[in-house]
Amino acid sequence: VNPRPALVPGIRLGVAAAGIKYSQRDDLLIIEMAAGGSCAAVFTRNAFCAAPVQVARAHLAETAPRYLLVNSGNANAGTGPTGLADAEASCRLLAERADCDATQVLPFSTGVIGVNLPMAAMARAIPEALSQLDEGGWERAARAIMTTDTRPKLVSREFEIDGVGVRVVGMAKGSGMIRPDMATMLAYLSTDLAVEPGLLQRCLEAAVASSFNSITVDGDTSTNDACVLLASGASALPRVTDPTSPVYARFSAVVAEVCMALAREIVRDGEGATKLVEILVEGAAAEGEARELAYTIAHSPLVKTALFACDPNWGRILAAVGRAGLAELRIERVEIWLDEVCIVRDGGRDPGYTEAAGQTVMDKPEFTIRVRLGRGTATARVLTCDLSYDYVRINAEYRT
Amino acid sequence: VNPRPALVPGIRLGVAAAGIKYSQRDDLLIIEMAAGGSCAAVFTRNAFCAAPVQVARAHLAETAPRYLLVNSGNANAGTGPTGLADAEASCRLLAERADCDATQVLPFSTGVIGVNLPMAAMARAIPEALSQLDEGGWERAARAIMTTDTRPKLVSREFEIDGVGVRVVGMAKGSGMIRPDMATMLAYLSTDLAVEPGLLQRCLEAAVASSFNSITVDGDTSTNDACVLLASGASALPRVTDPTSPVYARFSAVVAEVCMALAREIVRDGEGATKLVEILVEGAAAEGEARELAYTIAHSPLVKTALFACDPNWGRILAAVGRAGLAELRIERVEIWLDEVCIVRDGGRDPGYTEAAGQTVMDKPEFTIRVRLGRGTATARVLTCDLSYDYVRINAEYRT
Repeated sequence: VNPRPALVPGIRLGVAAAGIKYSQRDDLLIIEMAAGGSCAAVFTRNAFCAAPVQVARAHLAETAPRYLLVNSGNANAGTGPTGLADAEASCRLLAERADCDATQVLPFSTGVIGVNLPMAAMARAIPEALSQLDEGGWERAARAIMTTDTRPKLVSREFEIDGVGVRVVGMAKGSGMIRPDMATMLAYLSTDLAVEPGLLQRCLEAAVASSFNSITVDGDTSTNDACVLLASGASALPRVTDPTSPVYARFSAVVAEVCMALAREIVRDGEGATKLVEILVEGAAAEGEARELAYTIAHSPLVKTALFACDPNWGRILAAVGRAGLAELRIERVEIWLDEVCIVRDGGRDPGYTEAAGQTVMDKPEFTIRVRLGRGTATARVLTCDLSYDYVRINAEYRT
Repeated sequence: VNPRPALVPGIRLGVAAAGIKYSQRDDLLIIEMAAGGSCAAVFTRNAFCAAPVQVARAHLAETAPRYLLVNSGNANAGTGPTGLADAEASCRLLAERADCDATQVLPFSTGVIGVNLPMAAMARAIPEALSQLDEGGWERAARAIMTTDTRPKLVSREFEIDGVGVRVVGMAKGSGMIRPDMATMLAYLSTDLAVEPGLLQRCLEAAVASSFNSITVDGDTSTNDACVLLASGASALPRVTDPTSPVYARFSAVVAEVCMALAREIVRDGEGATKLVEILVEGAAAEGEARELAYTIAHSPLVKTALFACDPNWGRILAAVGRAGLAELRIERVEIWLDEVCIVRDGGRDPGYTEAAGQTVMDKPEFTIRVRLGRGTATARVLTCDLSYDYVRINAEYRT
């Protein structure tokens, strides 16, 4: 994924081991953006959004950030007024050391819900992380934000504008409680290109819609989802302000590509996941029903356990299509495909279908379940994974 | 559950081992109702409803049934025109032997989707099951309809009207693919009371709404759900025709009680289930949002794995409440309780909550998760179970 070291001029990263939940591993991250940069962000729509989400939104509304402060192991969610005070206090701790205003710090937390943030540990670790700030800190940073993730997720791209190289680097964490409804668990992208803030936000929202907002591991939307795009402006290129310019088009495409690559990594590393499966719905009457159906299939425990078992038990897919609540569905028009193998048509098993052909697809680590509804032109695509013993083990053991 | 042998005058049951999927166990059931009885039924709303469901609906529209023909091990769903022909042919096979019209037979199937019904086996087993017809056949019948169920589900009640005993006996099967949307997988109830058909249907629909239609194991609605209530009319009591009569009220209450008891048994025997958990939502603005929220919690894989682990990880419940899509939810009014232990109030952890108190409730085999929204008077109740290793094992191995 990343042939060259991840690096974005104007962006430095530093980590520390605060011992918040995990011992002897980095769990605190500070990302610093050079003065004058711009920031775009999207957050969870979970009504119980965590304290740091509330504080980050409020700070963003006041000023452009200089620092992102991220901890793993504790979500600071469901913590009421104490949680809000702790999130604010964390920002102040960093601001005092870094000589900026507390509103220029955005806090992010991920981990267990309902436990207060250990403020003494935060106070010890923040100076340490600040002392580590370095443009080459991406790899360690991507590890520091992990919770049940089995590996860091880091994607780096470079492209040229008028002979000048532009960097887009992103990292993400997330493995369970993944059905983002605005962003994913935590994702941080940055570029050295200077981009007008409104345009940067537009770029990020478009990229997120087709990437982080189109994946699901378990259907559970986190209280702490956030995705941030920092544009440091360290590039020699002129500031991007025109949404119709070729530069913006090129930049947006690369940001979308980085988001999609990170989103795929999240599903591939879904808790207990052994498969990466694309659910593609075609021929729907509207995008809404296409997405609804794609998620119904993606969330079906019976479909997911069949995926785990490599079992072409397509009756479970058919049952999921049938229960998705599509008004006046004409089942005789529905087709169900596994990659290029047609299983269902005319309301029943395709006469040419063989179990062996279905098995060949199901044995693959990545494939597509395609449902064609034959009632319109709308489509939707959702990425998901299977449901395995390890999903149960991980989530039955997570707090112990 | 059943201190006296299940028996309903006017109803006989016979079983046979057809070898449809399982060998050396009964898998075919015939229920016979005396001539002159009435029948009520509700069926799945899954758009891909199975061939026997389509045939049963059509036959019911023509005449009152004399026979129910049930097989386990094969759902005859997703089988297209062949499936419809097979279901019709099964009815004819029985009708010829029993000297009635084929439309007086209702077919029901449960088991694997997408495989044609083995008609030779059906033809062999139907005469055998007919020869076994007996009023005392309930226990064997409840076993014959099982698939992944670990035990038969049979509930019997008796009450008196004017000194005359009235029987209500019901059986059900179901363990996975359980989120009924009209009835459950398969349930058969009967009474010896004579009840006018329209009134019988009304009685059944009311009973099903609060029982079978308020349970979920895995959120997957079956293609074959059906619930039938037979009133043989063998009782000496006059036919019930008045919906405002005390007799109807009493009868309806007992039918509802039997449905609820069977529904509880289905969830208790949910695939891999170790817990029976009631999700109670109170103080909602409307029943629709209360049910939506209850199901959101009941379907959350993270909540379900925490239940399996006996882990009072209430943050997962809170996250599920937050993602349920309730418009303008005021989180500071939300309370979350485990039985009589308040966990969340005022937007965060209740100051009086202790992990030990939560643990005590979570260690119980049955308890209630209660969410109070503080925005109205509507309520909803859903029964569910946990998500265990065995759910994954059962559903990863089911077809092998």
